[in-house]
Amino acid sequence: MTNTTNHGRGARSTKHAAIATTGERTFTRPEKISHIKGADGGASRVGETLEIRGWARSVRTQKERAFIDLNDGSSISGMQAVVNEGSEAWDIINSGVVSTGAAIAVRGTLVASPGEKQAAELLVTKLEVIGIADAETYPLQKKRHTLEYLRSIAHLRPRTNTIGAVSRVRNQLAFATHKFFQENGFLYVNTPIITASDCEGAGEQFQVTTLLNELQSSAGPSLEELAKAEARVKSQGDVVKAIKDAAKAGNASKEQVDAEVAKLLQAKGDIEALKSTGASKSLPINKDGSIDYSKDFFSKPSFLTVSGQLNGEIMACAVNDVYTFGPTFRAENSNTSRHLAEFWMVEPEMAFANLNDDMDCAEAYLKYCINHVLEHCDEDLEFFEKNVSKDNLRERLRNVASQEFARITYTQAVEHILAAKKKFEYPVEWGSDLQSEHERYITEEVYKNRPVIVRDYPKDIKAFYMRLNDDNKTVAAMDVLVPRVGELMGGSQREERLDVLERRIEDVGLEKESYWWYLDLRRYGTQPHAGFGLGFERLVCYVTGVENIRDAIPFPRYPGSAEF
Amino acid sequence: MTNTTNHGRGARSTKHAAIATTGERTFTRPEKISHIKGADGGASRVGETLEIRGWARSVRTQKERAFIDLNDGSSISGMQAVVNEGSEAWDIINSGVVSTGAAIAVRGTLVASPGEKQAAELLVTKLEVIGIADAETYPLQKKRHTLEYLRSIAHLRPRTNTIGAVSRVRNQLAFATHKFFQENGFLYVNTPIITASDCEGAGEQFQVTTLLNELQSSAGPSLEELAKAEARVKSQGDVVKAIKDAAKAGNASKEQVDAEVAKLLQAKGDIEALKSTGASKSLPINKDGSIDYSKDFFSKPSFLTVSGQLNGEIMACAVNDVYTFGPTFRAENSNTSRHLAEFWMVEPEMAFANLNDDMDCAEAYLKYCINHVLEHCDEDLEFFEKNVSKDNLRERLRNVASQEFARITYTQAVEHILAAKKKFEYPVEWGSDLQSEHERYITEEVYKNRPVIVRDYPKDIKAFYMRLNDDNKTVAAMDVLVPRVGELMGGSQREERLDVLERRIEDVGLEKESYWWYLDLRRYGTQPHAGFGLGFERLVCYVTGVENIRDAIPFPRYPGSAEF
Repeated sequence: MTNTTNHGRGARSTKHAAIATTGERTFTRPEKISHIKGADGGASRVGETLEIRGWARSVRTQKERAFIDLNDGSSISGMQAVVNEGSEAWDIINSGVVSTGAAIAVRGTLVASPGEKQAAELLVTKLEVIGIADAETYPLQKKRHTLEYLRSIAHLRPRTNTIGAVSRVRNQLAFATHKFFQENGFLYVNTPIITASDCEGAGEQFQVTTLLNELQSSAGPSLEELAKAEARVKSQGDVVKAIKDAAKAGNASKEQVDAEVAKLLQAKGDIEALKSTGASKSLPINKDGSIDYSKDFFSKPSFLTVSGQLNGEIMACAVNDVYTFGPTFRAENSNTSRHLAEFWMVEPEMAFANLNDDMDCAEAYLKYCINHVLEHCDEDLEFFEKNVSKDNLRERLRNVASQEFARITYTQAVEHILAAKKKFEYPVEWGSDLQSEHERYITEEVYKNRPVIVRDYPKDIKAFYMRLNDDNKTVAAMDVLVPRVGELMGGSQREERLDVLERRIEDVGLEKESYWWYLDLRRYGTQPHAGFGLGFERLVCYVTGVENIRDAIPFPRYPGSAEF
Repeated sequence: MTNTTNHGRGARSTKHAAIATTGERTFTRPEKISHIKGADGGASRVGETLEIRGWARSVRTQKERAFIDLNDGSSISGMQAVVNEGSEAWDIINSGVVSTGAAIAVRGTLVASPGEKQAAELLVTKLEVIGIADAETYPLQKKRHTLEYLRSIAHLRPRTNTIGAVSRVRNQLAFATHKFFQENGFLYVNTPIITASDCEGAGEQFQVTTLLNELQSSAGPSLEELAKAEARVKSQGDVVKAIKDAAKAGNASKEQVDAEVAKLLQAKGDIEALKSTGASKSLPINKDGSIDYSKDFFSKPSFLTVSGQLNGEIMACAVNDVYTFGPTFRAENSNTSRHLAEFWMVEPEMAFANLNDDMDCAEAYLKYCINHVLEHCDEDLEFFEKNVSKDNLRERLRNVASQEFARITYTQAVEHILAAKKKFEYPVEWGSDLQSEHERYITEEVYKNRPVIVRDYPKDIKAFYMRLNDDNKTVAAMDVLVPRVGELMGGSQREERLDVLERRIEDVGLEKESYWWYLDLRRYGTQPHAGFGLGFERLVCYVTGVENIRDAIPFPRYPGSAEF
């Protein structure tokens, strides 16, 4: 039987249940601080004896008592644990082992707090140290750290207020996503991550391969071997130089010179041969010099998906409304605060639906998410309001959730921009893409901080699969614009007419053959369908006010960085 | 404004709401068949006028009426739509455009059905054809198809009974997963898919790279160029042959021969030079011949994750109980019915938890999932029972959900196997891994179809991060075994003691430096924590009775196959 007594630094013993038990077995996790505090900060639980396990965020020692700011990850404020002088716990505190970051278990009585910061606090009767955190070396001392520094210690940063709060809000946004779609009868589907399908098209994609694995294991020459070979070239070079001088002086024949030159060439050739035992020569190559992908795992060049949409359409054309929620990838070499190489997307796809249904769904979904976090993450949002967004964050969110989004056409949007007194960095005319500055102008100024859905974009700036409108100039696409961010979601009704879709594929220079299965969806039982995509980290940024998208995902991937 | 009238094959017009509306905007999807039928097959809704959109699964025409088996993806049984002779719809049916696979909209009255198969049916007053499906070419005619054939048309197979039902059960299992962990206070976290971390270790991993992208765009020589070069070699070869013959006959000098041979060598060299403009030469190479990964997107060799566990531990050591639910990858070249190259894993990780907590969680989670599908997918499970598992599937599931799992040690398991009268393919002794045949013997025969959790495995057959028991021979690992499948989940308490973990890493021959951040979790505020992993597709197979794991995920990836 396992015994989990923690040897060394502090004692903690855990009583085990017998291996085989009878009777009903129940699963409950120990009650967490957020639950103890509930809606009234714990006031209604005063008098109860509780045990809490968590980490010390800070320890303040006064003359007659000590205060531990105890956090178990369930809330930002944690629980104040009070240790009175003379207790056993007091001695432990004074030995110095309970410092910032230490894992501890405290037992005591919940009492009304005389302090203003909390309604209740735990008067400690028993304190156990589970794991220390050396104050000399622990990178997260109480002082403030920049978000940039924290990214370099991504394994510790979720222990901070900001990243901890992001984790909780992100969790609630994810669950709200599932709840919203499940309540509306959508099926959650997993679209593929690796794809050898030709129709993902032009995006900058990561390649997935096992070809390089073998090259790595078949090591090239060692540096030592190479150094030796280079030394031989150098010394033979000296020999050649000497014999040429000798030949000039008549002391060596042409044949002797040629023989030494030949040795030099041989030595040089040896280096090349040595190098060629390394990686470069081992990639399997076709006769024409291209890579022989029949040797790769999937027998074809394979990539990480840039969107689940086309596969989502397959599912919607079979089991009706669906949504995906999974990772997508872009190998774009952009080091900005708005781009990640790996990010999570939410992509619903509705059968028997048009662009109005799509806009209704996007608006309802966003409002649902916002209402959900307003209800479940108030304390975290308050923290972001004070420390991160430094504006009226929650009011702004309530504002978005409570009013109808404006809906205008792209043509109307362009008219608004052309009529503006404001100077823009990028000029706009009908047919050009809207930049962030234009989008924000429309939602923030024209519509006074009201979200705006812009629809019916020129076909030439949108994807081929978007449904061609009757004007033959625009497509049934829509973007949802929100204050401070600009575009948050984008979607479209899909072209369901086989002949129109085939023409559009040709018009944009793609190959129809690559899209055989996508076209089959229009060949057999086609129907109008529509969907949209939401970059999940953008939603996290929008709701929390966090500016850099690298702080909206636990382990961000961007050029040069895939650590942890 | 967009007009979504469907031109061509059949008319369908959709009324649009005005672009800008005032008043409360609500989002509701059209009611689906499963909802109309509810618990009583629709009996309580008889008399209502309804509109249903979906696909014809089959059309049977009799003398005076026609029956459409209409399916909208929400259930397996769909709705019988009855068209009476003489109606407008009757004429449409008789024109033959409504065949298997066609998308249609029907309007009518729900009436009590005289048939035995359904409580209610729709008496059609209006029928619109939205999208036809040519009976000559549509691959999914009413006849049965093998699951193997269906995999080759993965874009159409979710329209079949079996794969449609798998999609619905899979969806409910996914939502049950989120509900279970959310209700128990776990945070959903997204661990990274791409990782350049050295500590994922020995698994067969896919490499993620942008190095090959450039090689592909820098095309090698065309086949035409190569053919020309080869032709030149051939013709020069003829010249050399001829001049050598001439030289033998005294009609050419040695110099002339040498000159033509030199030309031949040159021509041969040209081919090599031509080939070297292709892929093989362009991989960036270090001096030692190895690949220069500083040129790759993440500046290091990067791979697809094989597990989110280590990152999950990071999160659990900061925000307490968490779970992941995301894709993981194995580049194993195994073409079996139990392996996928891309599959979804559920990996909870609990802070301040030991192996008993872990077993309790695994047992409660599995029971929750089973109860959830028994409650929400009865019709689909009935279908699997009759057509796929061909046994008492639902009874078997109820049986698992309603009784306590047995819990034994590995040592006890080995004793059971050694005491068995049965012959096994693989012999067992203390220290060897249990095979599927042993696992099934224990859960099916020794424990009479009761799930069994086996714990405390020999350390040498388990991973280094599993907590060493006090006997120094076993670790706090556990596997959950279920009848018919064997191992369904596996987990462990993690080694939280810094010194023990460092020793274990060294003992198994790994490098401590690669695990610096994993070790930091033990250096600062360590505490006992535990978790397990569940292969989601294995759960889908287990619950549905579907045998091949390639049918448990919409778009399966395995050696040679990443289509769609």
